[in-house]
Amino acid sequence: MEPIIRQMNLFFDPKSVAVVGASRKIMKAGHVIFKNFVDNKRRGLFQGELYPVNLHEEIILGFKCHSSIAEIKEEVELVVIVIPAKEVPKVMEEAAFKGVKVAVIISGGFSEVGNQKLEEKVISVAKKAGIRILGPNCLGVYDSQTGVDMLFLPETKVLSTGDEVVATPRPMTGPIAVVTQSGAFGVSALDYLAGKQLGVSKFVSFGNKCDVDESEMLHYLLYDDQTRVILLYAESIENGRKFMKVAREVTKKKPIAALKTGKTKAGARAAMSHTGAIAGSDEIYDSVFKQVGVIRVKDMEEFFDVGKALAFQPPAEGKNVAVITDAGGPGVMAVDESESKGLTVKSFSDETVQKFEELKKERKIPSFATNLNPVDLTGSVTSEMFELSTKIVFDDPEIHGILLLGMHHTPSLQEDFIDRVANLSKNYTKPIAACAIGETEMALYIRSRFDKLGIPSYSSPEDAARAMAALVKYGQYLKKNNCFEEYVNAFLFTRDIHTIVSR
Amino acid sequence: MEPIIRQMNLFFDPKSVAVVGASRKIMKAGHVIFKNFVDNKRRGLFQGELYPVNLHEEIILGFKCHSSIAEIKEEVELVVIVIPAKEVPKVMEEAAFKGVKVAVIISGGFSEVGNQKLEEKVISVAKKAGIRILGPNCLGVYDSQTGVDMLFLPETKVLSTGDEVVATPRPMTGPIAVVTQSGAFGVSALDYLAGKQLGVSKFVSFGNKCDVDESEMLHYLLYDDQTRVILLYAESIENGRKFMKVAREVTKKKPIAALKTGKTKAGARAAMSHTGAIAGSDEIYDSVFKQVGVIRVKDMEEFFDVGKALAFQPPAEGKNVAVITDAGGPGVMAVDESESKGLTVKSFSDETVQKFEELKKERKIPSFATNLNPVDLTGSVTSEMFELSTKIVFDDPEIHGILLLGMHHTPSLQEDFIDRVANLSKNYTKPIAACAIGETEMALYIRSRFDKLGIPSYSSPEDAARAMAALVKYGQYLKKNNCFEEYVNAFLFTRDIHTIVSR
Repeated sequence: MEPIIRQMNLFFDPKSVAVVGASRKIMKAGHVIFKNFVDNKRRGLFQGELYPVNLHEEIILGFKCHSSIAEIKEEVELVVIVIPAKEVPKVMEEAAFKGVKVAVIISGGFSEVGNQKLEEKVISVAKKAGIRILGPNCLGVYDSQTGVDMLFLPETKVLSTGDEVVATPRPMTGPIAVVTQSGAFGVSALDYLAGKQLGVSKFVSFGNKCDVDESEMLHYLLYDDQTRVILLYAESIENGRKFMKVAREVTKKKPIAALKTGKTKAGARAAMSHTGAIAGSDEIYDSVFKQVGVIRVKDMEEFFDVGKALAFQPPAEGKNVAVITDAGGPGVMAVDESESKGLTVKSFSDETVQKFEELKKERKIPSFATNLNPVDLTGSVTSEMFELSTKIVFDDPEIHGILLLGMHHTPSLQEDFIDRVANLSKNYTKPIAACAIGETEMALYIRSRFDKLGIPSYSSPEDAARAMAALVKYGQYLKKNNCFEEYVNAFLFTRDIHTIVSR
Repeated sequence: MEPIIRQMNLFFDPKSVAVVGASRKIMKAGHVIFKNFVDNKRRGLFQGELYPVNLHEEIILGFKCHSSIAEIKEEVELVVIVIPAKEVPKVMEEAAFKGVKVAVIISGGFSEVGNQKLEEKVISVAKKAGIRILGPNCLGVYDSQTGVDMLFLPETKVLSTGDEVVATPRPMTGPIAVVTQSGAFGVSALDYLAGKQLGVSKFVSFGNKCDVDESEMLHYLLYDDQTRVILLYAESIENGRKFMKVAREVTKKKPIAALKTGKTKAGARAAMSHTGAIAGSDEIYDSVFKQVGVIRVKDMEEFFDVGKALAFQPPAEGKNVAVITDAGGPGVMAVDESESKGLTVKSFSDETVQKFEELKKERKIPSFATNLNPVDLTGSVTSEMFELSTKIVFDDPEIHGILLLGMHHTPSLQEDFIDRVANLSKNYTKPIAACAIGETEMALYIRSRFDKLGIPSYSSPEDAARAMAALVKYGQYLKKNNCFEEYVNAFLFTRDIHTIVSR
């Protein structure tokens, strides 16, 4: 492990943590953060040592409290700082003296409100001591594996009715890393991912990023075995050259999907008053992302949709996509969006059409099914028809990806079509994405079953098409850079490992 | 009531219905449809007379069966036909002889599979007898008020585990009418709307539309008191002149949101093999819709999002939008999308800024809150802050609409901010839309509470911005046609009625 990676790793997996500003008061951020560590330690998830630091307390949640970092006798690798901004430089000096390696400054009140000087003071202390800083003005780190959880937003909230409800859930372990400039968007993302049953490897909110920035984080995540895809939310990227160098390296091995906001003039103004970010010309970001293989998404929903696709499926070798459906209208919608996004939905080869015609002769699919791409199996569809048709299309060398639209409303379709198609897909390295429309029981079940079996599923045909477009785009980038095969092999290897583990 | 409206009304509220092809066999469409009527009659919802027609049965679900329409002694206003295509002309002749007024032909096997002649035969019989036809090859009608339900897709399905789950739900009564060329998309829409707790007034699937088409349906819905907004899914519109005439008339009183597919060449090809529709140039549709005030949406999700906005909120008088948020990142996202859609998010007037500064002085909002539009109340937000800020912005005559982003993750925000803002909004005629990101308990509760109180809520900032853009677009159209005030007055009147009733 490179020394820099080893140091960065201390943010996520420290042997010892001091929480400066730990508190007994339930409403304080320092309480919630310290309690997260305590809870996770008791659960056996967090295995490091834990030291609360607070001048005014003796014991917090059963842990002996220290009046300063200096007072802790044992080694401290990571310091989490949750105290008023003006007291932070002093704490950093103590941390330097103590030999702390990394610090997360949760506290706000620095450059984002005009206190540049205070921030510079903190930076200068850290630089001298070789301490790396995350923040200030950030939510810090959540690591689903090590139990490091600095989110000061409690998992549950109590409504005025007295009901306790899940409010800021922590997602389960999974292949998606979230790197975000906006803390508020970050927790929203966790809420989204947890609710959709999508697993997260690591979550980092770097706020003012006075030291560690997105580039270093991407570099670190390149070597993180848990992370298969990186979701990056950014309002500005200051060091463009560094970003390009790192991103180019990362995207050969791991896809990055980026939601870059501050696109419009008014949006850029809003971003500036939010994180002090100078958003810069949007066209430049577009072109830089393209050059270095970062997949830029147009909005929040595409962000997560694309992340899921890249986490679950290999990239496509080309842009020819097949649509298999039991519902004509949604089929047209999928074709429209695919073509709009630069994919091609062309008629099948004679050989493939012939195979469908034979199924018709054998009465295995309806005689009135269409087979020119889309394949429309109509409302008479059965699980077997979906399986047989998908196999034919998987076997067509001219087709590089499949959109499977399985509307469950048709009377004779049983839910085992999902398992059949998923099993089939294991024999191929072509990507497949699914759509099931609806928001009641059966539709939710269908989508969750698809997801569980590794086929990313979406609630609209267009969402599925956009996800496939990302798989095509990423495949094109990898091919251009001669690393398509290497990536796919590594992807399939880790995917199979993952599948084995989760069974 | 115009005679044509009175006749069209028989599709939705007939005094007597014959179901030709009613069956005892559980898997048959004729069974499901007849059973829908029987169930709804027993519930007291469907109040017409009911006649099963089937040569081979004596009794179906307790109803005496008739061997033909001719055998029914009483009057029959509506005939639902669910028998093989080739037998349909004969049944239509019997219906003509019997004096039937309207017929819904569910059966497929006509022009969509090349049997133009058979379809023409049916049309000619109907024309002579003055019978209006819906279909063939369609799902027919679902009316949430009268209990007319021709959907042959059962409400629940049994999984292979033996579990019974909701599969094709029927939405509750509400202000949204769905008019669709694709039956499969239609049921998907019902599944979506039911799951999102959105109410439907009428649902019509017209399939091959050999007689009644979208224009006539729109004309009818103009006079339907239950319908406040119309969602139209179309792959083709044949009689453009007629459509323009009707749409122009309708959109002055009721908004129409259209999802027109077959946009791309490949999509048009797919549409042709689906419904035989010749999709035509997409630019022409764009320009026609614009001319007649139909709001065209870009995909399925926007279709429903816009429908909800138009059903719940008045249109905007201008395009200046304010964003009020407790989360910086999502605020930037909302601004970006608003501006991209042609809305303006400009800095507030001095007067409005002054009001915010006073709130700061009074320590009623945080001193570090930004108030230049977006208003960012930050993670320190409380319900009162949201209420006070929203009032200031509502009172600003330069602002025409509000996007309220309430991320519930912030520690001191209680859910009563929704009720406070909703109550406040009743005093204004400006539209407001909300966003809450997340997919777990609290986020779902927040969105559903907003919706219940008449503020359309969305799961992403961009979705909310797009919904607002539709309210602005529609407002602009109404103003241009000098019917803004009349529309708003009528809207507010029926909205208040609705609110009173649903209390």
